Amino acid sequence: MAAADSSVYRATTTAPVNIAVIKYWGKRDATLNLPTNSSLSVTLSQRSLRTLTTASCSAIYPTADELILNGKPQDIQSSKRTLACLSSLRSLRQALESTDSSLPKLSTLPLRIVSENNFPTAAGLASSAAGFAALVRAVANLYQLPQSPRELSRIARQGSGSACRSLMGGYVAWRAGELEDGSDSLAEEVAPASHWPEMRAIVLVVSAEKKDVPSTEGMQTTVATSSLFATRATSVVPERMAAIETAILNKDFPAFAELTMRDSNGFHATCLDSWPPIFYMNDVSRAAVRIVHDINRAIGRTVCAYTFDAGPNAVIYYLEKDSELVAGTVKAILTTNTDGWNGPFYDILKDVTAPGVSLDKIDSRAVEVLKEGVSRVILTGVGEGPVSVEDHLVSATGDVLSH
Amino acid sequence: MAAADSSVYRATTTAPVNIAVIKYWGKRDATLNLPTNSSLSVTLSQRSLRTLTTASCSAIYPTADELILNGKPQDIQSSKRTLACLSSLRSLRQALESTDSSLPKLSTLPLRIVSENNFPTAAGLASSAAGFAALVRAVANLYQLPQSPRELSRIARQGSGSACRSLMGGYVAWRAGELEDGSDSLAEEVAPASHWPEMRAIVLVVSAEKKDVPSTEGMQTTVATSSLFATRATSVVPERMAAIETAILNKDFPAFAELTMRDSNGFHATCLDSWPPIFYMNDVSRAAVRIVHDINRAIGRTVCAYTFDAGPNAVIYYLEKDSELVAGTVKAILTTNTDGWNGPFYDILKDVTAPGVSLDKIDSRAVEVLKEGVSRVILTGVGEGPVSVEDHLVSATGDVLSH
Repeated sequence: MAAADSSVYRATTTAPVNIAVIKYWGKRDATLNLPTNSSLSVTLSQRSLRTLTTASCSAIYPTADELILNGKPQDIQSSKRTLACLSSLRSLRQALESTDSSLPKLSTLPLRIVSENNFPTAAGLASSAAGFAALVRAVANLYQLPQSPRELSRIARQGSGSACRSLMGGYVAWRAGELEDGSDSLAEEVAPASHWPEMRAIVLVVSAEKKDVPSTEGMQTTVATSSLFATRATSVVPERMAAIETAILNKDFPAFAELTMRDSNGFHATCLDSWPPIFYMNDVSRAAVRIVHDINRAIGRTVCAYTFDAGPNAVIYYLEKDSELVAGTVKAILTTNTDGWNGPFYDILKDVTAPGVSLDKIDSRAVEVLKEGVSRVILTGVGEGPVSVEDHLVSATGDVLSH
Repeated sequence: MAAADSSVYRATTTAPVNIAVIKYWGKRDATLNLPTNSSLSVTLSQRSLRTLTTASCSAIYPTADELILNGKPQDIQSSKRTLACLSSLRSLRQALESTDSSLPKLSTLPLRIVSENNFPTAAGLASSAAGFAALVRAVANLYQLPQSPRELSRIARQGSGSACRSLMGGYVAWRAGELEDGSDSLAEEVAPASHWPEMRAIVLVVSAEKKDVPSTEGMQTTVATSSLFATRATSVVPERMAAIETAILNKDFPAFAELTMRDSNGFHATCLDSWPPIFYMNDVSRAAVRIVHDINRAIGRTVCAYTFDAGPNAVIYYLEKDSELVAGTVKAILTTNTDGWNGPFYDILKDVTAPGVSLDKIDSRAVEVLKEGVSRVILTGVGEGPVSVEDHLVSATGDVLSH
């Protein structure tokens, strides 16, 4: 089959969001997106949050590659990271084509990539991880590349560091690696979602404020200026990585929870120790910290854990069996006036009317601050990695579709 | 003179508040109040804030020592720290009496100590440093002890660690020391107030919220749990101490300012890294951080520096020549509706109506948050150490007076 015909080649995939429990913060190489330390995340269910991406290529397309995100054409040439991903994927396709001349020369065709998130940007969730994971997975499927998710993670990493962890489901480690070329800086599955499927997460979306410092810039500032950061990267995180992998393998929620909370706090501590200081958590975030500690104290065991990325939103992990205690209490605090009490993970809470923990055991100021400051919740849980689907965003004749 | 007559012996002193620029956080010995690291503070003028304390003793008093703070009798026996201070001071007096039999046996007489602050407790200023410094200085005066302020600081330290720095004016270091008995853990003057008298401070008193974690408890938690704290104590602070002493000796405000801000941030970072995490700064504190950075950026040089103790109040240091730029801008932000725009340091600002820095160069959200969240300002500057006065709080016949 010649590549110069009017065929439109397509492949479509979904990709999940992931939320780190051991945080990625700090690059040892900014171009290659090589981190100063390993990290570990939970892949969130695509029943709640997912990116859907179709990669297509055709001789009928304009000669420049195109990328359309949520209906908006992107300037691909100004995104070195996107270019790096596409270039790596094309090289792998070229290698295939050079060993098997029967393959269509897709590597020579312009790409049209169309991507949509099923969650609003306003949710304040970092969509770049899911976005780059979906892009890499979709093009890899289009090119029928034989590389494993682990190998593809090396490419996705160059798009957005944390994207490498969204190529797999369940509990995923990103090994920092040691090589200068980054070839050993890869994601790998620590345990599949099926190993510990009871993990749940509730995202408290904090009323949007402008994000002060973009995370790439923030990371560079921290690495360059925080006098505490080196201790975190070289000593604290390696210990925590080993400990949390053990906790996950043993399904030891209290250990998982404490490591998650401490690592979030330690990461934000190094942000505060940066110069100038970087603050991502605000009073609403702190109220979420408070209620998590109060719930755990009231129950007498660790049933929930908070974590915060480079923004004020709280993600609270808990196990399904403790849904009423944790999500039920959050529901009682926020009331159902807050958006988001629906979706596939809501069933267990539908009929819960009383808080799992009496609100008089929760700091009353924190309750007020949360009620005022949280604009939306997202109920979700651990989930699978990217899935190939036929729900294409490009028609068989190459037109952009929308969902 | 026999000690059993009806004489009332009195001595009265003032003592200042001090605000650390390199923070004391962490005890290596909780009983002796020995710190994990050295610290350095600016003694604030007693024209703004001072404790006034009269120490008296008499055979006509009840046999148990008495302490009256702000009109309220204290249970001295339950305060190990007060007992430790009084015991040390009595021993020194006894030593004097044993070498000179002509001295009245004051060490055998009950004490009556009366102390008043000229600032409201609601101001949220740690009064324990000034309080213990005044107590030690007053009793030392009463006993006519020959010990230097440096030597007395060893005693005041046992009352409240930072109290040792309030026995001197100007720029005061508290050397952590190395000996187990704490005998080398002493305050010493780095430079007198007259060396750099232009230093000014504005305290932004943040609307009172309950303080979550008392500082002694917080310190112990941080030392025991923060994985970043050891780096701060053993490596970061020693470097900063050397650098800030040089900055003070050179009257290098930009260097002084950056070290001050970074050390405050680093201290709060280790609080956040503690388990459970400790938060003293809130959104109002963060707004103060923001306006300080914005003012410095707008002016193009470092004219002000923030620092935060174990609470949300901001202290902003600046030089007198920059009063309009700094305090004038704060005045424009808060408006004169905020309490405290008066006192001896206000003259230079009385006629300032426009902000020194155009408010459109200051983050507008930070302006709103500050305006709503600051309940009072205190304008002050570097000042002298304790001063003996005749303004006694105990009458010649032993009665408690009040001011």
